[in-house]
Order: sequence, then structure tokens, then C-alpha cells
Amino acid sequence: MKLDDSYLKQFIKDNELAEIWQQVELAHRMVQGGTGAGGEYLGWVNLPVDYDKDELQRIKKTAAKIQQDSDVLIVVGIGGSYLGARAVIEALKSQSYNLLPKDTPSIYFAGNSISATELDNVMRLCEGKDVSLNIVSKSGTTTEPAIAFRVLRGMLEQKYGKAGAAQRIYATTDRAEGALKKLADANGYETFVVPDDIGGRYSVLTAVGLLSIAAAGIDIDTLMAGAAKARLDMQKADGAASYYAAYRNILYRKGYGIEMLVNYEPSCQQLSEWWRQLFGESEGKDSKGMFPTSAVFSTDLHSIGQYLQDGRRELVETVIKIAKPQTDIKIPLGDDSDGLGFVAGKQMSLVNSRALAGATLAHADGGVPSIVLEVSALDEANLGYLLYFFEMACAISGYLVGINPFNQPGVEAYKTNMFALLGKPGYEAERKELERRINR
Amino acid sequence: MKLDDSYLKQFIKDNELAEIWQQVELAHRMVQGGTGAGGEYLGWVNLPVDYDKDELQRIKKTAAKIQQDSDVLIVVGIGGSYLGARAVIEALKSQSYNLLPKDTPSIYFAGNSISATELDNVMRLCEGKDVSLNIVSKSGTTTEPAIAFRVLRGMLEQKYGKAGAAQRIYATTDRAEGALKKLADANGYETFVVPDDIGGRYSVLTAVGLLSIAAAGIDIDTLMAGAAKARLDMQKADGAASYYAAYRNILYRKGYGIEMLVNYEPSCQQLSEWWRQLFGESEGKDSKGMFPTSAVFSTDLHSIGQYLQDGRRELVETVIKIAKPQTDIKIPLGDDSDGLGFVAGKQMSLVNSRALAGATLAHADGGVPSIVLEVSALDEANLGYLLYFFEMACAISGYLVGINPFNQPGVEAYKTNMFALLGKPGYEAERKELERRINR
Repeated sequence: MKLDDSYLKQFIKDNELAEIWQQVELAHRMVQGGTGAGGEYLGWVNLPVDYDKDELQRIKKTAAKIQQDSDVLIVVGIGGSYLGARAVIEALKSQSYNLLPKDTPSIYFAGNSISATELDNVMRLCEGKDVSLNIVSKSGTTTEPAIAFRVLRGMLEQKYGKAGAAQRIYATTDRAEGALKKLADANGYETFVVPDDIGGRYSVLTAVGLLSIAAAGIDIDTLMAGAAKARLDMQKADGAASYYAAYRNILYRKGYGIEMLVNYEPSCQQLSEWWRQLFGESEGKDSKGMFPTSAVFSTDLHSIGQYLQDGRRELVETVIKIAKPQTDIKIPLGDDSDGLGFVAGKQMSLVNSRALAGATLAHADGGVPSIVLEVSALDEANLGYLLYFFEMACAISGYLVGINPFNQPGVEAYKTNMFALLGKPGYEAERKELERRINR
Repeated sequence: MKLDDSYLKQFIKDNELAEIWQQVELAHRMVQGGTGAGGEYLGWVNLPVDYDKDELQRIKKTAAKIQQDSDVLIVVGIGGSYLGARAVIEALKSQSYNLLPKDTPSIYFAGNSISATELDNVMRLCEGKDVSLNIVSKSGTTTEPAIAFRVLRGMLEQKYGKAGAAQRIYATTDRAEGALKKLADANGYETFVVPDDIGGRYSVLTAVGLLSIAAAGIDIDTLMAGAAKARLDMQKADGAASYYAAYRNILYRKGYGIEMLVNYEPSCQQLSEWWRQLFGESEGKDSKGMFPTSAVFSTDLHSIGQYLQDGRRELVETVIKIAKPQTDIKIPLGDDSDGLGFVAGKQMSLVNSRALAGATLAHADGGVPSIVLEVSALDEANLGYLLYFFEMACAISGYLVGINPFNQPGVEAYKTNMFALLGKPGYEAERKELERRINR
């Protein structure tokens, strides 16, 4: 991966990088040494080399069993319990993975909303199919996945009987404790571990992400090797993650408040969703942090392109450039009535790369700085590298912002209100006050 | 539709609405009377009652033919040429429309990126299927759809012969002029009209959107009737669109720079994409306008929820509340080991609605004002109403911001650069300068 900072020149003066660099080195030391806030959640730092090898073998064996006995794998989880797996599967396979013919199971993500329509869809998609289920929840009591798991476990037990279903349900959860671990042990579900020292948004390369990724036929060894390569590169204080963290913090401190992750491959849209949780949940606290958003270009140049070129100015773009796409198509020759003479006979990848250069330059002229991250191809090794790069950059950047990048205290507020409004025991006082506010 | 402003009370004082209201009335008069900038693009205002009845019949007849002779309809278009149709189809049918069993054709959207991988996917999905194609382009020379159309027209002509393909290609384009109109007439494609006085982002209820919406089995008469109802309600200066425009401009002028459209049904995600173009392209100019973004809750409460609760404060939420969802599921009874006792036996819709109330109150406490738009159900009538409501609100709001809501001059900048970098004749001077900048 190469970080191209040439589109920043008109926005950041040479001295600015030098003047923030000691802070960057400090933040890098805080991550590597575990001396910063949240230092107990640094299990992801050495994960690419320091993981449970036996469990990884068991993941591969289980994935092969699911491929063998199932047309469908349902992954039940919310937030970090599904975003990483979905991002990797769509980026390496396709956004249309479930529609396309394949010799691996379809993979549906459930339990990530409270929509009955959505859950009903998943059940309809399972009709007449052999199904396995991977429930991913540290505690087992998070409302959204717990509801979906109640419903879908019922579906599996009706179909296969309680014992048969138990052979098709895989629980990724706490190593020793919690509601789901107890349930899994009582029912004989095979279990995988959500490590204690790795938060949800950093967990894609644990069993949380790897089981469904492997079931989709993706080479998880190469994915891990890509991350291991990034780990080596980022151990140095002047790795690409440090530069990315430095540049985005220089811009943030100048008043740029929105960062947009831009892709030129629609299959990377879910990668942006994973990234959005990583940075938003890590940095968005104590009234700080850049607001993370995303776009697919050139698609969205025809929807919000006007805004990006000429709207209110507080935008930064981080652009993922893929040098060699998975597929290429030569634009057919033909008469020039459609005005395409200038690209006829050329590869679409060439046009896409010129769109990237053209838009990045145009946005710079419009007042939007871009950081370009170039990878040679969209494959297991490069994606593993990119995931680790973003994780490390996020941790360094979080310390530069001056927050704890590893907690998420604000996530509880809506849950408390929802519990109170639903009459959960223990929330009676809150309920009264909330109902008064709603009905005023 | 009901606009609930109760969550704004701690952010907007009573006098503020009164003090901006004369401006709102002026903006409303500018839209209704065509006296503002861009007044020549107001064809959408009376469209729900003033449309070509013969063409609508022809759209229905063509949709029936496509349902009869095709397993797949490919819609080739970018920006406003596909976002509305995709939004309506997913909202009323399902995000999984193409995966689910149905007696209407699968609908794939192509030509909205320059990704060969994406275009190749669409071609693979057509293997062994009977296919029709709707190309939507006013000019016929927009690069992205023109490339896809060259490739896919070739696929159809190979499959059905030139004459056979012509019976399966439908061109929605300029009434009289342009490359696509000429090509369609020369080849005998049936054509539908992109009106001159309706911009792309306002065109969902013209042939641009209606042909594929009807092909998906959606009742377009009821959709239009819903919009007609909204038209009547919004003719009054104190319609809901005026209030929405007023509130978001009051907040914008206080420094709230980001508006997030929030849904609690994943099937409405594409509706947010349509909305994002509508507001972003209308208002994002001359360094003005709120940045439009979107989220699906409770899904994204587990990814960017932390940021929304406690990050940098410049966020406004506009929440779509659907009183009665398309499907409901009763949460099964069971032992309380998963902590769900408080919702066991209740409908998921109840839990979802309490999540909405809980999150909206929590975000208000965190400093995020919300405007709640409540519709009784997600059906043709309500969706037609909502589309028109947003269009009218956007026009009024644009005049309040003080821009022309109907042009998009900034969209050309990246195209110029891309053309120059690809060596299009007439862009030689730009090319030299751009290559110098890239290679510096």
C-alpha cells in the first residue's frame, strides 16, 4: 500500500507535518506500549501473528463443514459482530455474492436491525434450503441479535429438531462467561472466542469475522498474512498509518469536520461501513472527532458531486485506489454517435483510474483535500493489509485527538431509553420521565 | 404524513419560527409562481396531476410486456436516472427483491459506475435469462451509462439479433433531440420522455422512474395519487414542506452543518440515497448547504451511534417513522437466559418504535435535534406523498438558503478533467496542465 499525499500540497504546508510529528511518535508509542487510555484493548496489535492457531484450524474445518452441509449461512450479529465479515466478503467476492452462481453457501446477515420485514426476508430466503447459523455476541443479551436468534433458532429447531439444529448452530462469544456461552454449552453448540482484549470494531480478524469469511471460500491465511505484513510495517513510527493519522489530524485541527472514504469499486461499499464504525466509534466522543461518511465514485459524483465540488467547505476525502481491478472490460468499438469515440477500444479500468485522478484534482480545486491510499489489487493479502492499516491509523489518530479510542460509553444512552420505554425491570424511574417527555 | 417537531423544543425557541416565516412564505411563492432562480425547471410541481396520460398507459403496457417476456430488466442510468426507481422498488418490495421468489422480473441497475467488475456481474446474472433493457439518459452521451449501454446492447444483440434486441430495448430520453433519441429512432426502440422542465433529481415520477417501478409490479397510479395528495397539501404556504424547510434552515443558520436522514427499515436505505442527491445537489453550492448523509437504525446505532450521541456537535437528524410496518413478527416466548424477558411475546414493531423514541430522546440529550416525519404505512400512496413532500421541501429550502435549487454547475468539473486525461479532442490544453499536476 502506498499513501499518496500529493493532493494535500495546497492544504498543508511543509512545516505542519514536522511540527505535529513528535505528537504522532508519542501516539504511536502509546499504542505499541499500551500506555494510553484503553490500553487493555490492544489485543488486535499483535493478533496477525499472535492468535490461537488451533482455533484457526477449527474455523477452517467448520467452514468446510458448512460449505458441505449448507446452502445458506446466517450470521446473526450487530455492529462489529458483522460489519467486518460483510465488508471482506463483498469486497473479495461481490456485492452480488448471494445472487451469483457459486459453490459456497449464500451468507445472510441478520439480527442487525429490529425490522420484522428484514428478518422475515431472511426466513423466506431459507425456505427449502439447508441452513447453518453463526451467532456472534460477546454477551448474548444484545437486544437485536438476541431477538433474531430466538426466532431463527426456532426455525432451525423446527426444521432439524433440537439435536439436529445444535449441529448447525455456531456461537462466537465470550471464552467462559455470559448468556450465550452458557446456552451454547448447555445445547452443545460449537463455540468460538470473542477475545477479551479486542473490541468489536477491531475484531474482524478474530473468529468474529473469520468463520463466515472462510465459509465464503476466502483464504483466511492469506488475509492474516496481509495483516501481519502491515503489522511489521506499522511497528515503525514512520509507517503509513502514522502519516494518515497525522494528515487527518492536521486537517481536523484546521476545521475540516467531515471525512469521506471514497471507493471506485461498488463492492467496497461495505468496507466503508466497517471503516465508518472504526473511526466514528473510536473518535466520536467528548464533542470531538471528524464525522465519518462514505461514497462510491463515480456513482455518487452524480448525486452528491455538486456538494463535494462546491458546497459548504469542511470535507476531507480519503480515496482507496485499486491499481488492478478484479475484472476488466474493453469498451467496444462502434460509431461515435454516443460520443464515446475517445474511450472506444480502451479498458474500463483506464477510464475509472482517470475518473479518480480527474475528480481528486477537481475537488482539490474546489477546496477538498484528498489522501489517496493505493493498493495493487483487491485480494486477500491487500485487504488484510488495509484492515490492519486502518486499525492502527485509527488508534494513533485517536490518541492525537486526545480521546480513548477503545471505549464507547455513548452507545448505552439509546439502549437505556429503549429498555425503559419497553418496561424492562429496573428502569421504572427513567420510564416515567421519558413518557412525560414523549407525551408533552 | 405528520411532522413531529417536539424533539426540537430545546434547540429552537418559539419566536424563531415566527421570525423566519415571512421568508418561508416568500420561498413558497417563488416555487409556486416560478419567480425564483431556475424557475424553468418546475415541471415537477404539477406533475402529479399534469402528466402525459397516454404515456402513462404506454408505460403500464410496456411494463406488462417486460413482465411477460423477461426474467431480468436492466436499468442503465446514473444519478437521477436510477436513484428514484431503485429507492421505490426497494422500499415497497424489498432490499432483497432480486433474491426473493417473485412473479415479476429481477431488476438490475447498471451504468452507474465505471467498475468493470460490477458490469461483469450484471452480465453473469443475465446468463440463461430473458432480458430487457431500459436506458435512461437525456443526452445519451453521459460516459458511465453510455459505456454500459454499448456493452449490454452488444450482449442483447448477440442473444436476440439486432431486430430481436430492438424489441427489448426501451430508451427514456429527450423528446426530440440528442444522441440516444437518434439511435432509438434509427433502431426502432420504443422511447419514453425525460421532460425538459424537470431535472434528474426531481424526475422519479416521470417515465425515468415509472417504467422500472411498474415492471416490478408496483401500482404507479396509487404512487402518483399519493404525490397528488401531497401537491394539494403543499399548495398552502403552511404545508408540512414549509415547516421542514423552515426548521432545517433555522438549524443551518445556527451552525448545524450535517443532516442525517434516519430510517428504521433497512429497505429504505436507497430512499436515503435518492434524498441525498435531492438535497445535496440542490443546496450544495457557492460554499453553502447542509451536508446530507444517512443511516439505518438501530443498525448504525451500533456503528456510529457513539459519534451521534457524543461526537462533534453539528448534526441534525430527520427521522422517518413508519407507524405500521409491512411485516411484523411476535418475539417468541422462552426462558429468560438471553435477557429478553421484557420483550418476549411482544411484536418486533413495538420494540422498533421504542428504539426510535429512545434514540431520538437520547440524541436530543446529547445535543442532536431531530425532525420526525411519521407516515402511517410504507405503501404506494404514502411513498408517493413522501417523495413529493421532499421535493417541495427541497425547493423551498433552497430558496431559503439563497441558491438556485435547480442547477448543478459543479458536476462538470470532474468530467472535464476526466475527458482531458483520457485525451478527448478539444481538451488538449487542460490535459497538459493536469498531467503536470499529477506527475509533479
